[in-house]
Amino acid sequence: MEKEELTLVKVGGKIVEDPSSLSALLDRFVALPGRKMLVHGGGRTATDIASRLGIATQMVGGRRVTDAAMLEVVTMVYGGLVNKRVVAALQGRGLCALGLTGADLDVIRSRRRSAQPVDYGFVGDPERVDGARLAALVESKAVPVLAPLTHDGMGHLLNTNADTIASSAAIALSAHYRVTLMYCFEHAGVLRDPADPASVIARITPASFATLEAEGVVSGGMLPKLQNCFAALQAGVRRVVITSAEALSAHSGTVIEPHE
Amino acid sequence: MEKEELTLVKVGGKIVEDPSSLSALLDRFVALPGRKMLVHGGGRTATDIASRLGIATQMVGGRRVTDAAMLEVVTMVYGGLVNKRVVAALQGRGLCALGLTGADLDVIRSRRRSAQPVDYGFVGDPERVDGARLAALVESKAVPVLAPLTHDGMGHLLNTNADTIASSAAIALSAHYRVTLMYCFEHAGVLRDPADPASVIARITPASFATLEAEGVVSGGMLPKLQNCFAALQAGVRRVVITSAEALSAHSGTVIEPHE
Repeated sequence: MEKEELTLVKVGGKIVEDPSSLSALLDRFVALPGRKMLVHGGGRTATDIASRLGIATQMVGGRRVTDAAMLEVVTMVYGGLVNKRVVAALQGRGLCALGLTGADLDVIRSRRRSAQPVDYGFVGDPERVDGARLAALVESKAVPVLAPLTHDGMGHLLNTNADTIASSAAIALSAHYRVTLMYCFEHAGVLRDPADPASVIARITPASFATLEAEGVVSGGMLPKLQNCFAALQAGVRRVVITSAEALSAHSGTVIEPHE
Repeated sequence: MEKEELTLVKVGGKIVEDPSSLSALLDRFVALPGRKMLVHGGGRTATDIASRLGIATQMVGGRRVTDAAMLEVVTMVYGGLVNKRVVAALQGRGLCALGLTGADLDVIRSRRRSAQPVDYGFVGDPERVDGARLAALVESKAVPVLAPLTHDGMGHLLNTNADTIASSAAIALSAHYRVTLMYCFEHAGVLRDPADPASVIARITPASFATLEAEGVVSGGMLPKLQNCFAALQAGVRRVVITSAEALSAHSGTVIEPHE
């Protein structure tokens, strides 16, 4: 039997933390057809609340160092403030949202990252996503809303990168659905000309990616992003879409596909 | 067919906010036989975090006034910090916990309390608990952990008394289970002599309640507490138990029953 389609949308903190952009995003998310799931960030609010609590934010290579005090902050902000606001707002739009951290229903179990070469503190990398449990929730008409927190199965919460949660969940769900993974970032897609926001590349395949890389069109931070997209495709995800929250729809952005 | 037994435990903030008392409570909760559910408070942590954020806590008649800033705090603390810590700790003990606010899966919908005679702000009183949804979760081997937050179905979270959440959920679940509702408070049960912590009254029925009230044994704050217990029993709950977190077990405390 052909699997059903499922769309997993990952949206960063910048969008979900501003009431008006969150509202616009959720309107577009609700309009997406079929089965769906949301993964959100919340780093800016965490930094803000930490600062108000007198807790300094330390970043190494763009990633947050999570000591015990910062773990409390991200647990409050990601698992509570941002997640429950999104859930209540989706309920207000008629979607039966369910907020989850990886600890809830044991949906994402992580391994605490090694303290070498950088000690990021209470940070975990997903080891196992329970795709069957998530699929059962989706089939019961729930819309999971995943916060970027996981657990180690031994009672400890771990701060976890939201992009990684999205790709790990998309891969695990690929056993049950034809999964489209949509990353919302600042542009409407991958741009051919960074100075021209309208120059969105409609489709990237392994062959065209090689060409874009050789031509220098794709470089810098976009390179590892696209490499991660191809890794997700190799692991079973059907399509990855890179778009902006403002342009989020079933037909927006740059579509990355595993075949020519 | 005879309904299965379910035990719903309500525990206050004082217990869940201290790591060692929380750990001891969860050990006892895990040891309770059969189907179960937890409802927690968290008011002390909310007051503490609010104070650290420079937000004043205002209480009227022992209840928190919840303005927009305080709603953010309780959303963070109840829905995030306390709830997710409990969930991760239960997972660490082998129970498949699922943290929920009333907004998640639309399990508890509330009406915002009237601003007359006291304007408590963003505070809601439960109007509808989805007992069927909670029962389906329990039958899927999940252990719901309810935070004292609900929603109005129109996108807004509301702060909600944890005792009321516990009794409302117990009543709704009585359509599906033979429910025992256990309230953990500071004593091992209702005391015949307030000065003697060992003077726990083993059993209270409507007739013995009338006697205890006439004798003045039950008075003050315990009167409305017991009246609420009898209201829950009249609405279908099988037994209400008043005990302490330290004494929590299937055979502890004061048992309140609807029949002689």
